[in-house]
Amino acid sequence: MILLNNFFYPNNICLVGASSKEKSIGYEILKTIVSYGFTGNVFPVNPKAENILGYPCYKSIEEIKEKIDLAIIVVPKQFVEDAIDSLLAKKVDSIILITAGFKETGSDGEALEKRILEKIKLAKARLVGPNCMGIINSSAGVKLNATFVAEKPEFGSTGFLSQSGALGAAVLNSLRETNIKFAHFISVGNKADVCENDVLKFWQNDSNIKTLTFYLESFVDGKNFILPFINGIVTKPTIILKAGKTAGGMKAASSHTGALSSKDKIVDAVLNQFGIIRADNLNELFNTAKGFEYFNIPHGNRIAVVTNAGGPAILCVDALEKENLSLANFSDETKAKLREIVHSEGSVENPVDLLPGGNAETYKQVLEIISSDKNVDALISIFVEPVMVEPFSVVESVNSIESEKPIAQVIMPLPEFWNKYTFESHKKLPLFRNPEDPAEIFSNLLFYKNKQTLLNKNFEEYRSIANTKSSAIEIEPGFIPQDQIEKIANKYNVPLPRSMFLSPNKLLLKEINFYPVVLKGINANVVHKSELNAVRLNIKNKNELIAAADEIQKSFSLAGFEVENYLVQEFVKTKHELLVGGFRDPSFGPVIMFGSGGKYVEIYNDTSIKSCFLSGDDIDEMISSTNIGKILLGVRGESEINITHLKQIIKNCSLMMI
Amino acid sequence: MILLNNFFYPNNICLVGASSKEKSIGYEILKTIVSYGFTGNVFPVNPKAENILGYPCYKSIEEIKEKIDLAIIVVPKQFVEDAIDSLLAKKVDSIILITAGFKETGSDGEALEKRILEKIKLAKARLVGPNCMGIINSSAGVKLNATFVAEKPEFGSTGFLSQSGALGAAVLNSLRETNIKFAHFISVGNKADVCENDVLKFWQNDSNIKTLTFYLESFVDGKNFILPFINGIVTKPTIILKAGKTAGGMKAASSHTGALSSKDKIVDAVLNQFGIIRADNLNELFNTAKGFEYFNIPHGNRIAVVTNAGGPAILCVDALEKENLSLANFSDETKAKLREIVHSEGSVENPVDLLPGGNAETYKQVLEIISSDKNVDALISIFVEPVMVEPFSVVESVNSIESEKPIAQVIMPLPEFWNKYTFESHKKLPLFRNPEDPAEIFSNLLFYKNKQTLLNKNFEEYRSIANTKSSAIEIEPGFIPQDQIEKIANKYNVPLPRSMFLSPNKLLLKEINFYPVVLKGINANVVHKSELNAVRLNIKNKNELIAAADEIQKSFSLAGFEVENYLVQEFVKTKHELLVGGFRDPSFGPVIMFGSGGKYVEIYNDTSIKSCFLSGDDIDEMISSTNIGKILLGVRGESEINITHLKQIIKNCSLMMI
Repeated sequence: MILLNNFFYPNNICLVGASSKEKSIGYEILKTIVSYGFTGNVFPVNPKAENILGYPCYKSIEEIKEKIDLAIIVVPKQFVEDAIDSLLAKKVDSIILITAGFKETGSDGEALEKRILEKIKLAKARLVGPNCMGIINSSAGVKLNATFVAEKPEFGSTGFLSQSGALGAAVLNSLRETNIKFAHFISVGNKADVCENDVLKFWQNDSNIKTLTFYLESFVDGKNFILPFINGIVTKPTIILKAGKTAGGMKAASSHTGALSSKDKIVDAVLNQFGIIRADNLNELFNTAKGFEYFNIPHGNRIAVVTNAGGPAILCVDALEKENLSLANFSDETKAKLREIVHSEGSVENPVDLLPGGNAETYKQVLEIISSDKNVDALISIFVEPVMVEPFSVVESVNSIESEKPIAQVIMPLPEFWNKYTFESHKKLPLFRNPEDPAEIFSNLLFYKNKQTLLNKNFEEYRSIANTKSSAIEIEPGFIPQDQIEKIANKYNVPLPRSMFLSPNKLLLKEINFYPVVLKGINANVVHKSELNAVRLNIKNKNELIAAADEIQKSFSLAGFEVENYLVQEFVKTKHELLVGGFRDPSFGPVIMFGSGGKYVEIYNDTSIKSCFLSGDDIDEMISSTNIGKILLGVRGESEINITHLKQIIKNCSLMMI
Repeated sequence: MILLNNFFYPNNICLVGASSKEKSIGYEILKTIVSYGFTGNVFPVNPKAENILGYPCYKSIEEIKEKIDLAIIVVPKQFVEDAIDSLLAKKVDSIILITAGFKETGSDGEALEKRILEKIKLAKARLVGPNCMGIINSSAGVKLNATFVAEKPEFGSTGFLSQSGALGAAVLNSLRETNIKFAHFISVGNKADVCENDVLKFWQNDSNIKTLTFYLESFVDGKNFILPFINGIVTKPTIILKAGKTAGGMKAASSHTGALSSKDKIVDAVLNQFGIIRADNLNELFNTAKGFEYFNIPHGNRIAVVTNAGGPAILCVDALEKENLSLANFSDETKAKLREIVHSEGSVENPVDLLPGGNAETYKQVLEIISSDKNVDALISIFVEPVMVEPFSVVESVNSIESEKPIAQVIMPLPEFWNKYTFESHKKLPLFRNPEDPAEIFSNLLFYKNKQTLLNKNFEEYRSIANTKSSAIEIEPGFIPQDQIEKIANKYNVPLPRSMFLSPNKLLLKEINFYPVVLKGINANVVHKSELNAVRLNIKNKNELIAAADEIQKSFSLAGFEVENYLVQEFVKTKHELLVGGFRDPSFGPVIMFGSGGKYVEIYNDTSIKSCFLSGDDIDEMISSTNIGKILLGVRGESEINITHLKQIIKNCSLMMI
């Protein structure tokens, strides 16, 4: 398997389709490569031009004598296949295909994309794209901007993958305003070959990358995206903005379990389970990346806020509580020290209010005192520019504080400030514009840390499940016959009520010796039985059974169905109805659900989902995160029900699903 | 009652505490007034200076001969009371007190504030502040910026009130970046006299103001804030950013109803009920205000999206669905017309994808075609700057479209664009930076419209309830005795189960003729009876009653309580347990709650709250917004329970609360 090294660290690159026409992609991309200061060599290929932007042009790929590490193709669609052939003949193993017009445009494009991919695979090469906008590596030793957005990204230790070229472009367009920095950017387009799963593992092994960010519209193979997290292969902070949340939902919503879950709910659940941060928007995605890049992860969730202004501090505290972070309680010693500095009309309680007079010196002193309080895990400094204090000095003074604990600065200045900061700041630490931002960041940092702890703790358990070879029972597609159900349930030690499956003409002949029973009318096309009145409870004797069967039969007839079979089951008296369900997500594989059961299950929607690759801790979390779980665990003086058995059933059902 | 006219439309203003010292508030505020171009006359008062910024100074207030419409006080706290005395003696009726150090700093400040307020009231004058940052009126005929932020706000037809001066300053600092515009800004500080309730009514009657925006940390008198909406006195769109969401919660959380509600949940419920938009952050607050200012309110929720880029369009569609808006289905005619313009590899389905080649002409043509489709209520145009198309021309071209339907533009350009737009745009329509923004705006516009329709429809019903004089039954504070409960319940036609209240020694003497019964042990200090096992159901005869009373007595003893009384009630067999509860919110007045009852009520937290000033439509919404309500209304083939009686009970309980 070829790694992605040549995509991000090439020495010789060729641009197939370089152009001398301004505003064309073949021109702009070369201009961008040149102006950003690529440290390697560029070989433009164009049969007609002699020279573009000072670079001598090659008439053909064959004309290039040097070994090419990376080829970028921007020729029109009809010339792409030839270009690929020539590159593969020249043993180029890394190709970025920027040209669009493939799978995204219909069946012709799809066929061409498939043909190209087969050639790539045969040659053991790798392809990024088609329909993408290229790659950037901002490291000093490379300085490659092989996109057509002529911005000059600053280096930061983040990797950013975008499935949408345009969204990537929008981010690049905004760099000077948002101060987003990254080491690598890759636009993967149609993901014909290279996809998020490859880049995930590549970045895990690249020491320039500390944090991984992804904008995704789909997972090519969700199960193989999460397995490296389960197996402890990917451990770096990973943040995903997953769009297309509401597209479609589960198609097969014919069962309860299906209707209770949407594709997006599964994405949420699975990412959460394995400690992958899901961002709601671009702001959260990159703010969180900045958090990982510039801050230590706090040890706990006790936050201190220092401000020169009430309003923004209140918005900040609202956000802290929303994110389940808490306002730290300062020690008496801290408060005593603060009292000496803070204006008598300000506050030495958390949030500390320095009033509009708070300046570079007081901010620094106060934050230093608070950062050494052992009751504080992280700090937020908020500064609204008043007339009398100059913001740059305050920000730089806070930036200069040496502390193990993260200090996130929110700053609300006049616009002139930003330019000054960009050019004159010493450390250029990130600044945030909304009082709500730091809460989101700290919360994400802590989520990552806590999940890493759990993943490590349960490493063996996860790995043994993930790597178990299945010994499946062969099952026909469609409804599973009752005898098979019993066989499978026995194998996985999932208890069933005593049952008999009887055809209508056998129902009355068979002697039943476990009254009271439940009688269910079965037809493969009737899934929700209650609606046809097809479930009759607490039948105490044969007479009642005959009457119930008769009624079910009539109710089916009215709806145009036949009773194919009757299921007779032991009537189990229960205090609570629970649901344990499983299904196979097309992308993430087997998934398990626990929650409230019963006929109102869809209305109460009180369920929790996880990947079937789960630990005992995961099962505890599933139970305690539902209302029915809280009730089982004991509320209002009721003694706790023994849930060991329930946990075992959930576990066994997961294994059965796998 | 003095209106607020002189605050926003003064001719002669005096500045008490004008200063010649740069960066002092007394200097900066004068400078700001002058540089913004106030159209009236300014009289600076300073006993020492001759002349500040070219304005001759007055030694004292008394020295000013002219009538003063508005006085602004910035002198140190110790001189404030004298200044007020002099102003009132001069019959100045409108005073802004910027100086801080009053109620917010403790009891001395509070006493001073109270004394000043009494003088103001006695003189029938009005006071804004103290501890505020002033007022702005950007109308061409006034041009008053009486704050110390020297920005020059552009006129827009929005009023903005900020309880926090700093948050106001932060917004003013950002004006050039956020393009926020307003007609009036007022910082109300401690709200000693003038508060949101005054400004609300003033703006409703001011023809310069179309939309009302508020940043609030508390409601001075929530009931009187909402009554003008109930009475149809305030009808303009009103948007509130209410901070301090999580501060404290209901103190008296000793009852279920209390524990199930937080102050913030009540704010949410009451604002929603009367069509007041609640914004989550500053971005939503001002984006929504821009929406009302520049767009017609759409007739429905069918939205069309036109884009040159997939990713941002998907994020936009995610946001639409989150806000319960739907993607419009185009007519065949529309699609046929689009097919002639849109690139064959683009999409003529909604969202329409013009691909990176989409330019000023195609954007305009496509949006015009779509805007005349009767299946479309509102449009969103998304443009990510690519190399080949220049953004300014696209934006201006879209701005030039004449359509009754709103077209919101999202634009993701290089930073240079913004400056060009600010200076060269013809119409300067608002542009949005996040693909998620328009969904929030359209959703808020539609919310307002729909609620206005409901408020109009139910106007008489609301008004008769709101203006009903109460004929209260006198009740002692504390637990209400059973006989009183029955009297009140009878008066308001609230059904109770048959009950008897018996002391322990009378329980066994009394003949009970309505078995089966429920027995409850009562002690004023035991609120949640289940936890002490003090509720026994389905007692069928005297023997069972004796046993149950004995058990309750033992369980109370163990917990250190005495059984003060027994309550014997008819055992009502129910299918569903419901909760109808009421309480008095300290600010908003009587509030009613409906939802799931029973012992797990706090875990399921399936309730809906509204102000007791409610219409039949409100009651329907309360019921249908809860899970238990959905079950009552019929699910999965169950016939609907007759809920007329339930609605009447909710209504009667509301009247009882009022």
